[in-house]
Amino acid sequence: MELLIMVDACRRASARSITAVVPYYGYARADRKVQGRESIAAKLTANLITEAGADRVLAIDLHSGQCVGYFDIPVDHVYGESVILDYLASKRIATGDLVVVSPDVGGVARARAFAKKLNDAPLAIVDKRRSAHNVSEVMNLIGDVKGKVAVLVDDMIDTAGTITNAAKVLAKEGAREVYACATHAVFSPPAVERLSSGVFQEVIVANTIPVAPENVFPQLTILSVANLLGETIWRVYNAASVQALRD
Amino acid sequence: MELLIMVDACRRASARSITAVVPYYGYARADRKVQGRESIAAKLTANLITEAGADRVLAIDLHSGQCVGYFDIPVDHVYGESVILDYLASKRIATGDLVVVSPDVGGVARARAFAKKLNDAPLAIVDKRRSAHNVSEVMNLIGDVKGKVAVLVDDMIDTAGTITNAAKVLAKEGAREVYACATHAVFSPPAVERLSSGVFQEVIVANTIPVAPENVFPQLTILSVANLLGETIWRVYNAASVQALRD
Amino acid sequence: MELLIMVDACRRASARSITAVVPYYGYARADRKVQGRESIAAKLTANLITEAGADRVLAIDLHSGQCVGYFDIPVDHVYGESVILDYLASKRIATGDLVVVSPDVGGVARARAFAKKLNDAPLAIVDKRRSAHNVSEVMNLIGDVKGKVAVLVDDMIDTAGTITNAAKVLAKEGAREVYACATHAVFSPPAVERLSSGVFQEVIVANTIPVAPENVFPQLTILSVANLLGETIWRVYNAASVQALRD
Amino acid sequence: MELLIMVDACRRASARSITAVVPYYGYARADRKVQGRESIAAKLTANLITEAGADRVLAIDLHSGQCVGYFDIPVDHVYGESVILDYLASKRIATGDLVVVSPDVGGVARARAFAKKLNDAPLAIVDKRRSAHNVSEVMNLIGDVKGKVAVLVDDMIDTAGTITNAAKVLAKEGAREVYACATHAVFSPPAVERLSSGVFQEVIVANTIPVAPENVFPQLTILSVANLLGETIWRVYNAASVQALRD
Amino acid sequence: MELLIMVDACRRASARSITAVVPYYGYARADRKVQGRESIAAKLTANLITEAGADRVLAIDLHSGQCVGYFDIPVDHVYGESVILDYLASKRIATGDLVVVSPDVGGVARARAFAKKLNDAPLAIVDKRRSAHNVSEVMNLIGDVKGKVAVLVDDMIDTAGTITNAAKVLAKEGAREVYACATHAVFSPPAVERLSSGVFQEVIVANTIPVAPENVFPQLTILSVANLLGETIWRVYNAASVQALRD
Amino acid sequence: MELLIMVDACRRASARSITAVVPYYGYARADRKVQGRESIAAKLTANLITEAGADRVLAIDLHSGQCVGYFDIPVDHVYGESVILDYLASKRIATGDLVVVSPDVGGVARARAFAKKLNDAPLAIVDKRRSAHNVSEVMNLIGDVKGKVAVLVDDMIDTAGTITNAAKVLAKEGAREVYACATHAVFSPPAVERLSSGVFQEVIVANTIPVAPENVFPQLTILSVANLLGETIWRVYNAASVQALRD
Repeated sequence: MELLIMVDACRRASARSITAVVPYYGYARADRKVQGRESIAAKLTANLITEAGADRVLAIDLHSGQCVGYFDIPVDHVYGESVILDYLASKRIATGDLVVVSPDVGGVARARAFAKKLNDAPLAIVDKRRSAHNVSEVMNLIGDVKGKVAVLVDDMIDTAGTITNAAKVLAKEGAREVYACATHAVFSPPAVERLSSGVFQEVIVANTIPVAPENVFPQLTILSVANLLGETIWRVYNAASVQALRD
Repeated sequence: MELLIMVDACRRASARSITAVVPYYGYARADRKVQGRESIAAKLTANLITEAGADRVLAIDLHSGQCVGYFDIPVDHVYGESVILDYLASKRIATGDLVVVSPDVGGVARARAFAKKLNDAPLAIVDKRRSAHNVSEVMNLIGDVKGKVAVLVDDMIDTAGTITNAAKVLAKEGAREVYACATHAVFSPPAVERLSSGVFQEVIVANTIPVAPENVFPQLTILSVANLLGETIWRVYNAASVQALRD
Repeated sequence: MELLIMVDACRRASARSITAVVPYYGYARADRKVQGRESIAAKLTANLITEAGADRVLAIDLHSGQCVGYFDIPVDHVYGESVILDYLASKRIATGDLVVVSPDVGGVARARAFAKKLNDAPLAIVDKRRSAHNVSEVMNLIGDVKGKVAVLVDDMIDTAGTITNAAKVLAKEGAREVYACATHAVFSPPAVERLSSGVFQEVIVANTIPVAPENVFPQLTILSVANLLGETIWRVYNAASVQALRD
Repeated sequence: MELLIMVDACRRASARSITAVVPYYGYARADRKVQGRESIAAKLTANLITEAGADRVLAIDLHSGQCVGYFDIPVDHVYGESVILDYLASKRIATGDLVVVSPDVGGVARARAFAKKLNDAPLAIVDKRRSAHNVSEVMNLIGDVKGKVAVLVDDMIDTAGTITNAAKVLAKEGAREVYACATHAVFSPPAVERLSSGVFQEVIVANTIPVAPENVFPQLTILSVANLLGETIWRVYNAASVQALRD
Repeated sequence: MELLIMVDACRRASARSITAVVPYYGYARADRKVQGRESIAAKLTANLITEAGADRVLAIDLHSGQCVGYFDIPVDHVYGESVILDYLASKRIATGDLVVVSPDVGGVARARAFAKKLNDAPLAIVDKRRSAHNVSEVMNLIGDVKGKVAVLVDDMIDTAGTITNAAKVLAKEGAREVYACATHAVFSPPAVERLSSGVFQEVIVANTIPVAPENVFPQLTILSVANLLGETIWRVYNAASVQALRD
Repeated sequence: MELLIMVDACRRASARSITAVVPYYGYARADRKVQGRESIAAKLTANLITEAGADRVLAIDLHSGQCVGYFDIPVDHVYGESVILDYLASKRIATGDLVVVSPDVGGVARARAFAKKLNDAPLAIVDKRRSAHNVSEVMNLIGDVKGKVAVLVDDMIDTAGTITNAAKVLAKEGAREVYACATHAVFSPPAVERLSSGVFQEVIVANTIPVAPENVFPQLTILSVANLLGETIWRVYNAASVQALRD
């Protein structure tokens, strides 16, 4: 709502053009109807930002690429992953040792894109199911992680339930070390408790959401997207190519 | 935002028509630009409610009548004052003893309408000014309150600064008793402290905003708008006249 | 309608931007629903101007500040009062002698802003009521005008009924002289007859509406807003600050 | 503008549906750009009616059929000609004697439709030209009218210049009698003078525009569209077929 | 649809402005409702182009001038006729020998404009009717073509039925030679068969639609609108006057 | 475009409500920008359907659930999979023998939902990559299919390249039999050639797109969605729950 009011103030003050910079697009997960009678808040938010008067949007790691289509105004969708990938590369883990893991089936495409950029690392998927006639949850691992350094990849960590359960499966299946990577550190309780409980070698996030000091823990690494964001804003302002930046 | 998401869910679920019931229209005070480069959040909110898919709005005691015009969809604007007026009438204060007071110049029209319904009680206005070459604030009373029961009328009480200062002026000018009446009990700190400090005989509000238990104090009277709201919703649903209800 | 057709012609002729300059916004008084089943013509007009293709609006002394919010495009709302204030200042009336009077409760905020700029002159209000059980109208004066130079302030003079009745009350209550000030000289009959009948020392208006030669009378002073308008247009065209001009 | 304000009042009063009944669509002639930098007021008016909140429009004899397309809401376009055709039929003019004439090339399609319904009467056209190198105007008759009863057909008569000049050409070319038929009697001066000067046997119009008493002259016949309009409104209200009425 | 997708891609790529260049506006003939329950595809297409994000449209020889009004964005409507007129002028046909003919009553205004530019050549019209009580079609010629060079003018040739039938009437009525002129060569079968069957001395079209090699026949002349289009685009891009080009 | 014209015709004919029934949503695959400067045709199409006047949309197996959010009008998204699942169930393949396979990482969520309904069958994924420094394509199988009946699941089969390559990988990895299941049989060449070449035991599609007679081959089974569609239309028309149908 604050964003919308600021956009409205800019519009009424005759701004020549208004770009909404949205490092973390809050309702992005509500991007489709899982059941009937649900809202699609990600689309609603897109409509509201447009209605308020924005001419352009700059967002980082939207939950799904389709969110770009929720707008009819131009959206510059930049990937915070690049910052995380650079950091991982600096750790010099042997290529043959790596496996990229998606913590659920919904994130496979993201994990695969990540794997491709990590020297075409192999891919594994954790598939959690709660069958109809069986209340207990079953975690299946699709792919092989034995003796490997497993890198779990997601767009955001909220309560950390899914990613922590996935990490436990990886440990059980023989992964040597488990890293968690995510752009948006939502960190709702009990995320910190779960993430710092020892299952992760390291938890790597970007600073698209400020992490409160009390939520910092030893395994946490926070990477800055400031350069990425600044370069993009500069290109938007100067009508330079944002696509070129992504390549 | 919750309201907008609910409206969106109703729309996507093929509701035949959607009426947003808004007992307290939150941004109603931001209904014009006092300085340049300000937002008009009351208009923005109206646009957002319409954009989300509402067909009609039901609101109580908007900050200004012009807010109705911020919508192009029908707005049923009902007056919670009627509940407060009924309660005041039940106190049987002698007509000649009453004076209705507006705590600032912006609320004179509201106070006058109120006075008219209280057997045409006389009107007084507290006019606070901070002159350009003088940092100290001056409170002027326009009208006469000596020996009278003064009823301060406003649409909402937020931090209670304006209404408490006005009450002090009234006491200084010889008012016998001071009542505060307002529909919306926003009660931001230090409202409760100010209102319960002894300057008011009674503080009368409606329940358009739930008052937290810790904010209840001895002089506070909370009146229910449930009947008013229920009757209005019934009329909207049955295409009966809301105007007839207002008369 | 002529304005709308001109805007449409500009749009179809590929104008880079279109600013509608509206010295007198005709339907501005119809800015809220006083009774049910009324139009809000001030909002409708705002919608029509936007629909026709205007990108920006420049208006003088709108009936209420909320009219700015009726638009979602930028509105430059400039105050013709400044011209009237300069003229009054040139008359060198002793500060202690002045009292600014609102002819009805709806105009108190405007009168107060005016008073503040006249060396913080005191304020008085004429409150006309027609009680339910009494057909005769009663005019109350709230505040004190005895022996003072009273300046009645309004945004427009239409039939001059309200302002003339207010002037009579002021005379009866002992005002030494009565001035009438208003930006928009609508002057519907019998305005001229009433204004020239001797109750006013001087009637001061701006030229936002051309006054027909037959409507000119000895006490009338017409002040030009040409410089104000010209300076504002220049600033709009050159993207300079209109707010700075207002300060 | 009155129409738009009434539509707005209906919308704000929660009308279930709003049909604008427009017997004479005033700006219909301004339906295309003849020169650059012109408005298309017929389209603008359509936008304004829609913007004000109308759900449907009922219009009689629009200047061009394309005007229906200026709206995206349903338009019931009914033909006042049927009333005129019935009246002409009642005069029992021998079929072989009749010729239908368009007073200019722009109205040929209308005249032809008219002719077809008058037992397939022949068609003639008056073609007025002002050549580039010759300031004098030349009136050509295309087709044959000698010894015939000529019926000039147009959608409206404004100043009556075109239709009167056409009538003179017809007389010169040997027409026995000349009738003028038009739905909309705009009758701007000097229309009455021209129409009553003796060139026309009879001038037949509909009452889509009220003809002022001082504009009535001996040769004028005013036919009522009340039944046509009433039947159409009944069908719109009852969701019956308006098309069936036209056939 | 390809046009719309390209406009969408431009919009999402932050194009500063988007002009849709439409040499042949495909649905232009569907510009009004001839019967009830028809679409007005020409208006729909205009809405779609606007909705997709175009800021301006450049079109050649729309079926009716009213199509310009179907858009609220600026439309540059240029006339391919000028190219055809230049070509005809180069043939040096004696002015007194020429007659311009409209193949049906709907095209009279276009034919007349054409005639005016050909040294004010006379006009004739072919009027095809199918009477209600008579299944056979009757072709009437209004005007005189005996011994003349007849130039049939239309905006497009689709199946060539109307124009070929008109040509036969002209031949029967004694025209010395018959030319066919049209901007848009739609050429649906059996257009080529009809046009090349010997009734036309020459068939002159523009290249707004590419003519397939197998549709070329000896009497066909294809004129290029490339210069016209290029000059117009240049003017649009440089904010120069398109109207000046038309004069 | 035909759909849009029909919607427009319905709107202009005053239809009470318009539901667009879209068994195969053609541009659904273009639902996000893979590279810069691309269109999002799935969103554009949603805008066009809405702009044309549809009130509601009924679609089968959209490429992504997010496409529902591309509309602001209600969308009834029904799943043709249920028809395919019923058919598979009728084949009585032993549960332990089955494995559901996604032919690429983008379809994992769909394959998993399918697997869950097939008695919680295990899941496998074919991951095709073309690494940056290596032009040859590598197909990896994630998961285990040895000795199993593999069911490849996708929403549509276009040229059948991906699904046929996936089937070959499955065969190589020891799958006993390979079935292909897809709702939309686009069947662009050389789809039929690939599908009928012997790698598939059976190819099961729905009739959302009519399969041309020349495209039918021995292994092809076409299942009807008529009942599903009919039941849904009936529920939409009678305001019954479509969600209940899905459960």
